[in-house]
Amino acid sequence: MPLAAGITAQILAIGSEMLTPEKIDTNSLFLTQELNNLGIAVTGKEVVNDSLHQISEAVLECLVRCDLLLISGGLGPTEDDLTREAVAMALGRGMVFHDEILEGIRERFRKFGRPMTDRNRKQAFVIDGAQVLPNPNGTAPGQALEIDGKLLFLLPGPPRELMPMTMEHVTPRVSAHFPLRVLRTFTFRIAGLGESEVDERVAPIYTKFTNPETTILAAAGDITLQFRATADGEDEARAMLRAVADPIRTELGERIYSENGDSLEETVVRLLKAQGATLAVAESCTGGSLAARITDVPGASHVFVGGFLVYTDAQKMGLLGIAPERIRAHSAVSEEVALDLAANTMARTGANYALSVTGYAGPEGGTERDPAGTVYLGLASAAGVTAKRFHFTGDRARVRRLATQYALDLLRMAVLRGE
Amino acid sequence: MPLAAGITAQILAIGSEMLTPEKIDTNSLFLTQELNNLGIAVTGKEVVNDSLHQISEAVLECLVRCDLLLISGGLGPTEDDLTREAVAMALGRGMVFHDEILEGIRERFRKFGRPMTDRNRKQAFVIDGAQVLPNPNGTAPGQALEIDGKLLFLLPGPPRELMPMTMEHVTPRVSAHFPLRVLRTFTFRIAGLGESEVDERVAPIYTKFTNPETTILAAAGDITLQFRATADGEDEARAMLRAVADPIRTELGERIYSENGDSLEETVVRLLKAQGATLAVAESCTGGSLAARITDVPGASHVFVGGFLVYTDAQKMGLLGIAPERIRAHSAVSEEVALDLAANTMARTGANYALSVTGYAGPEGGTERDPAGTVYLGLASAAGVTAKRFHFTGDRARVRRLATQYALDLLRMAVLRGE
Repeated sequence: MPLAAGITAQILAIGSEMLTPEKIDTNSLFLTQELNNLGIAVTGKEVVNDSLHQISEAVLECLVRCDLLLISGGLGPTEDDLTREAVAMALGRGMVFHDEILEGIRERFRKFGRPMTDRNRKQAFVIDGAQVLPNPNGTAPGQALEIDGKLLFLLPGPPRELMPMTMEHVTPRVSAHFPLRVLRTFTFRIAGLGESEVDERVAPIYTKFTNPETTILAAAGDITLQFRATADGEDEARAMLRAVADPIRTELGERIYSENGDSLEETVVRLLKAQGATLAVAESCTGGSLAARITDVPGASHVFVGGFLVYTDAQKMGLLGIAPERIRAHSAVSEEVALDLAANTMARTGANYALSVTGYAGPEGGTERDPAGTVYLGLASAAGVTAKRFHFTGDRARVRRLATQYALDLLRMAVLRGE
Repeated sequence: MPLAAGITAQILAIGSEMLTPEKIDTNSLFLTQELNNLGIAVTGKEVVNDSLHQISEAVLECLVRCDLLLISGGLGPTEDDLTREAVAMALGRGMVFHDEILEGIRERFRKFGRPMTDRNRKQAFVIDGAQVLPNPNGTAPGQALEIDGKLLFLLPGPPRELMPMTMEHVTPRVSAHFPLRVLRTFTFRIAGLGESEVDERVAPIYTKFTNPETTILAAAGDITLQFRATADGEDEARAMLRAVADPIRTELGERIYSENGDSLEETVVRLLKAQGATLAVAESCTGGSLAARITDVPGASHVFVGGFLVYTDAQKMGLLGIAPERIRAHSAVSEEVALDLAANTMARTGANYALSVTGYAGPEGGTERDPAGTVYLGLASAAGVTAKRFHFTGDRARVRRLATQYALDLLRMAVLRGE
């Protein structure tokens, strides 16, 4: 790997649940990203059982092999949370009880009006010589150790605790401790094109470069192009990124919806906010998931006003006044009904834009003309009302996701063009 | 682990791509399921780079720790496919060239009208003493080795090659080689209690047993208790599961919402369907994500009719007729408004049940009395209208998730009690 400047890391996830057929360690993806951003390659990952012996054995093996070891999980209050004890055992160190940690945990329970259990006491033990990493999002603090120039971190398993702790406490310590090369990344996010179409258009450009390295990630209707440059300095890395990104930007044009990693919904909320415009929705087959994506964005309340969930024909008529004869003549899944849903939603909410979705998400439903996967998207604005037919492939979850993706992209293009 | 009859397995995935932030080893989920079906527990999983030294080191470490080692990946024709060589090196064995394997690969290329490259020759090498496992779905055959009573398998990385090879050649060899017992699992899913509260109530029961083994998994407002029993026969395993599950069922009572792995939304949809009842929602801070969870369930259209997204005060008044003076007197985030939202939604949609959500998801918003994280849930039914205040902790995504979780659970309890 061209990534690392000799500094290697391993990731160790603790927990029997990640050795079942149902659950996988996904924290390591985030941790790898954070380390790669520093120019550090991950050379191995491991998952071990909640067993004192197995954890301590794995810790010793990993410490031989790498400069940096990140351990996640096993810091909870239950009997099978054994990471603290196992690492102490591996290192031949004792544990110290920290009153102020217990007080913090007690305070946390008090704040939420729940009684602290005695089990939580064990979370106040810290390995001798370790630094405590505060955890504002949970009860288990993290721990940081330096052993013969190597770094070892104990991190809580829940992603919403592990992620902020890593960004705030792990990354800065790692980058201060090791002599690192500069690694910089740049990202395009693209809507409205398939993965192979994107690749066909941009491969002639990016294959000319081995550094930056280019990765294409594809989700439903959402392509991410990531470029990573390693260099001796910041300016050099930036210039290398521009060399590949500029011609690709020219090639893909307005299919690129974000250059800073923002999601499509974040982009749409930002565009609407910049125009001082508001949005309402009427959802049938997406059943709230379009609005859910929009309102996932903090500050969505500046642009999103609300709308209608009209899952059944009766509600399309009852809540939004769709004429029964329209549904009878064209069916509820039709361009006509998509148009009416959008127009009536705009009229009733007073929003500047209204999106509508009606379709067959599957596996049930569909007709010969419009099989499962068929979705009509409507958009109303001061410029008028339009609707468009799509046929998406895949299971129910994918059809629903694609419907929200294309709806957001329709809106993005209309807002961009001032329509 | 008490799971298996002493037979333990490890899974080793080979490939640098699984050490990037984008890609994860998912073959191990399938392999774990196959092994668990035989009563064999996976005690560790590892991912290592395409490096001769790292692979052979990992193989040796794993062989010390377990009875059965499944290695996936690194059997391709390219320069960084090194699994064969690394395993041979670890075992101190040579490699034998098999003409008939090369002939098979050549035949495969011929069939697809493509020329075989010289690189593919390396795929015809077999570790001394290994049995060849045919691969009708790709060029790389698998290999099986017995070493001091332990079994070791080399499997191709692509799932559509690995899966059929495992089912046809690995599982039968494993079950013929080891004296195996039956492994059976049982699951409770629990809402409305925190992880430590569940653990405190059930640990006195499950800690009496080492077999079945108990695992607690916690997501936002959603706890899973899994029990796994190993026994000589099916009936014995079932009886052992009942021995731990029955007293826990008594202890947790109606906090258990599912015993078959179903999600809370699946449970709620099933309960409503069984009663022939319908549901509508009015969502403010959850912004569609409650409805999205319900309509994620295939067949939700039998019970879910629709509802209102009333993200702003204006829409609460405009779409659902909440009196302005109610909002002025109590604020839109209040028990009073939650009651009105639920009652009016039920009246306007004609549904049998209506859920309402109004709160501050954060990070913006909130008052001294009701800081960010405060959510009022309302429920209307033939039995009347009720509302309840909650204070959830965590970021915006977690507060929204918890709000939908507790809303679904309120509804579940009402439907169960026939209210």
